[in-house]
Amino acid sequence: MKNSRRNFIQKAALGMAGAASTPFIGQAAVSAMETFKTEARLPVGIAGYTFAKFDVDKAIAMMNRLDVRFLSIKDMQLPLNSNDEQIKEVLSKFKEANIKIYTAGVIYMKTKQEVDVAFDYAKKVAVDMIVGVPTYDLLDYTEQKVKAMNIKIAIHNHGPEDKLYPGPQNVYEHIKNRDQRMGLCLDIGHATRAGANLEDAINDYKDRLFDLHIKDVTGAFKDAKAIEIGRGVIDFEALVKVLYKINYKGVCSIEFEKDMTDPLPGIAESIGFFRGVLAAVS
Amino acid sequence: MKNSRRNFIQKAALGMAGAASTPFIGQAAVSAMETFKTEARLPVGIAGYTFAKFDVDKAIAMMNRLDVRFLSIKDMQLPLNSNDEQIKEVLSKFKEANIKIYTAGVIYMKTKQEVDVAFDYAKKVAVDMIVGVPTYDLLDYTEQKVKAMNIKIAIHNHGPEDKLYPGPQNVYEHIKNRDQRMGLCLDIGHATRAGANLEDAINDYKDRLFDLHIKDVTGAFKDAKAIEIGRGVIDFEALVKVLYKINYKGVCSIEFEKDMTDPLPGIAESIGFFRGVLAAVS
Repeated sequence: MKNSRRNFIQKAALGMAGAASTPFIGQAAVSAMETFKTEARLPVGIAGYTFAKFDVDKAIAMMNRLDVRFLSIKDMQLPLNSNDEQIKEVLSKFKEANIKIYTAGVIYMKTKQEVDVAFDYAKKVAVDMIVGVPTYDLLDYTEQKVKAMNIKIAIHNHGPEDKLYPGPQNVYEHIKNRDQRMGLCLDIGHATRAGANLEDAINDYKDRLFDLHIKDVTGAFKDAKAIEIGRGVIDFEALVKVLYKINYKGVCSIEFEKDMTDPLPGIAESIGFFRGVLAAVS
Repeated sequence: MKNSRRNFIQKAALGMAGAASTPFIGQAAVSAMETFKTEARLPVGIAGYTFAKFDVDKAIAMMNRLDVRFLSIKDMQLPLNSNDEQIKEVLSKFKEANIKIYTAGVIYMKTKQEVDVAFDYAKKVAVDMIVGVPTYDLLDYTEQKVKAMNIKIAIHNHGPEDKLYPGPQNVYEHIKNRDQRMGLCLDIGHATRAGANLEDAINDYKDRLFDLHIKDVTGAFKDAKAIEIGRGVIDFEALVKVLYKINYKGVCSIEFEKDMTDPLPGIAESIGFFRGVLAAVS
């Protein structure tokens, strides 16, 4: 056991070195990763919607308790119409807590003005990526903004109910011929409900896979419910293996949508399970 | 991924079939195991000391939320001097909650009378095993009780502070030549603090390994602290592999000794991590 532990630490150290050159997370993020050795290759984050019922201080307290250092910030933590002072205050709270805001979203965009607001917000929050959902007719304009501001967009799939992007293939077909800074935030729960094969999706869309919302669901059908990671139907061992295989360089952000007024035990179980899989898959 | 999922379910089903013939957990326990597929080969339980600050109802509520079906009952849930009516009431609560009380302990025994009390209690609680700590001079008498009542005893190691059984070897040397129903409850955290090599201990003492207290610790030294599973120094992948290798037939009971007035998130993270390792190690 001592030998395998030593090997494991060496592997983790190599992973760290590799992560330092990732295009999707910066140097500050890499140092934050050192807090959790199992995440050297696949850092774990939180999608801000998880904390929909809580203020920023409570969200930070939960992230600290869970030792999670990456946040996809959502308007619940920082409204899109925040002024500079409000933005500064919230960003400084996360910075003091050693939490890296690595993207913003999910941001829905139905007008050009909403696209402008989203990109201006991203610039002010100092992220280089938006997780967003522009309508089809806004994709040209969105692409112009991506080019003009050098801010990536990861379009999020939202399951069978979503008329625009139910599954990852519906995102990919709309961005594959566009600027390479336009990609996919694969929500594995919604994708599973939409009938997507996760392994195929990750392999097929790997060149545009910018972000992940990880969660579990009770079944591969529309009305399946959110559940703690490990209790549902998603095969996380297979997921981690394919993410390693494609050399995924983004964050795995847990979006927990059960028990939203008392989510901490469920988030903790979910993160524990995912970290356990990370520790055991080489 | 669909294929690996199918294979995984098949493996779990085979594990279930194997578990039905285990000597350490009965048929009722096997049906309880069906609630969590990853635990077909290594069921997860809770050591009752984890709920030291809570009454039975709150302990049951936490176990239900965590979907854990095995309890090593401790005097906090049911005092050793309980009368028949009190025992009946507590047992019925756990039974209604579909929680199997598979052992009782840790019970400390410093007099013959305390040995008598422990074995009478085990009989009334209807468990076939005590997790206990008899002093050396009581081992002959304890062995007589084991033979007379056909109740096993798993002696618990409690780390460097423990003058009797700091590490698993200190238990094994005292029981190896005694009745085969005398064995070890290996506390992996205390064993690690005592300098034991867990893989060696499990291999060397496999014929007498009846129970496990699983947890993590911040280091392999006396003053190391309890911490959420996965955050410490214990290699759970290696642990699960050696438990599979020896075909361990007992329960893996989490004993969480941090944040004891607010333990649920830490227990959840710990159980999640362990289940994640179980899901990924074949």
